[in-house]
Amino acid sequence: MKIAVLGTGTVGHALAGKLVSLGHEVAMGSRESANPKGAAWAEQAGAGASAGSFAEAAGPAELVVNATPGTVSLAVLAEAGESTLNGKILLDVSNPLDHTGGFPPSLSVCNTDSLAETIQRTYPKLRVVKSLNTVSAPIMVEPARLPAPHDIFMAGNDAEAKSVVANVLQEFGWSPEHIRDLGGLDAARGLEMWLPLWLRIFMQQPQGKMFNIAIVSE
Amino acid sequence: MKIAVLGTGTVGHALAGKLVSLGHEVAMGSRESANPKGAAWAEQAGAGASAGSFAEAAGPAELVVNATPGTVSLAVLAEAGESTLNGKILLDVSNPLDHTGGFPPSLSVCNTDSLAETIQRTYPKLRVVKSLNTVSAPIMVEPARLPAPHDIFMAGNDAEAKSVVANVLQEFGWSPEHIRDLGGLDAARGLEMWLPLWLRIFMQQPQGKMFNIAIVSE
Repeated sequence: MKIAVLGTGTVGHALAGKLVSLGHEVAMGSRESANPKGAAWAEQAGAGASAGSFAEAAGPAELVVNATPGTVSLAVLAEAGESTLNGKILLDVSNPLDHTGGFPPSLSVCNTDSLAETIQRTYPKLRVVKSLNTVSAPIMVEPARLPAPHDIFMAGNDAEAKSVVANVLQEFGWSPEHIRDLGGLDAARGLEMWLPLWLRIFMQQPQGKMFNIAIVSE
Repeated sequence: MKIAVLGTGTVGHALAGKLVSLGHEVAMGSRESANPKGAAWAEQAGAGASAGSFAEAAGPAELVVNATPGTVSLAVLAEAGESTLNGKILLDVSNPLDHTGGFPPSLSVCNTDSLAETIQRTYPKLRVVKSLNTVSAPIMVEPARLPAPHDIFMAGNDAEAKSVVANVLQEFGWSPEHIRDLGGLDAARGLEMWLPLWLRIFMQQPQGKMFNIAIVSE
């Protein structure tokens, strides 16, 4: 599949690298066409990897991954351009973390709205699926590094788009019974509002130890 | 221990009943001294159980449990009275769920504040500990009904108060390694903001099936 990963940070690198290793054609998008981070990534990632501006990366892609910080995601998507985005699937892994008040961050949108819904309203023809934002980058692409089964969530209004995303999650190693479809995109409120608790658990973890949650049911 | 449980709903009944069965002296508090629900509970719960107004229940208690809906908790505590509450431990299990916009509810306070912190600011001499609000009532008092280990959280500014609450949680059946102390009471933001995701997972559960989360760590 042709995939654009928007964002050159830790999350962008983890996702783009994994997707290339799985055989996808991956373009890493950044603000400038000749961004050194994007170019360096494409060079070391080898065959199937390229880099370009947000619009250049998104143009040929079937699936666009929003791996930018939530507070700049709307500006990034505007640079990609509405006509480029229309009809594509957007896997939104971002979190609207507002660091202006210090650590831990608050959310720039929450409760009766979410970043994912804001993106969907701004681009009605984009097929937005929220997923992976509830775990750190290494867990997103390698769930097996945790010693017991654990869960990942998905929300979106387009069933076919969710099915495409679920396939990508399975390629990452998430087993179908641990991919929890929470329904429509308004469930992204819960997925984004998980972050404050995630951060508090993270702060109590031994240094560098990754974690996630597992649903334990009757 | 002398314990007041404020609230006559499902959560209040579950907690008060369990606490009596453990040998504590429990007073169920409600708006009116002669509230029929409270009186009926005290009669069926037997020795160690009583009922009264919020102030009557809280008066002799060492530990006060806020098991009222979050949107009325401040009014309830005002009825109990500041002089009654001063110096006591408050186990706050409430959630600030605002149902005025329909289902699923939003939160009446969140992000840069929480209900628990609001209570603490209003009653600076009350020793507020947030816990148990992340699970449904039957799980609060019987964690073993789920088939695998799972976790409960705690937040508060008073270490001794948290230790008293942790003892109660252990009496309920929570093992010490699954009682996760998240630090100061500002961590209650994360615990309360968990509810929107809890509700979405709940909506996907088979009818009536209880659940909770387990932290899976490296």
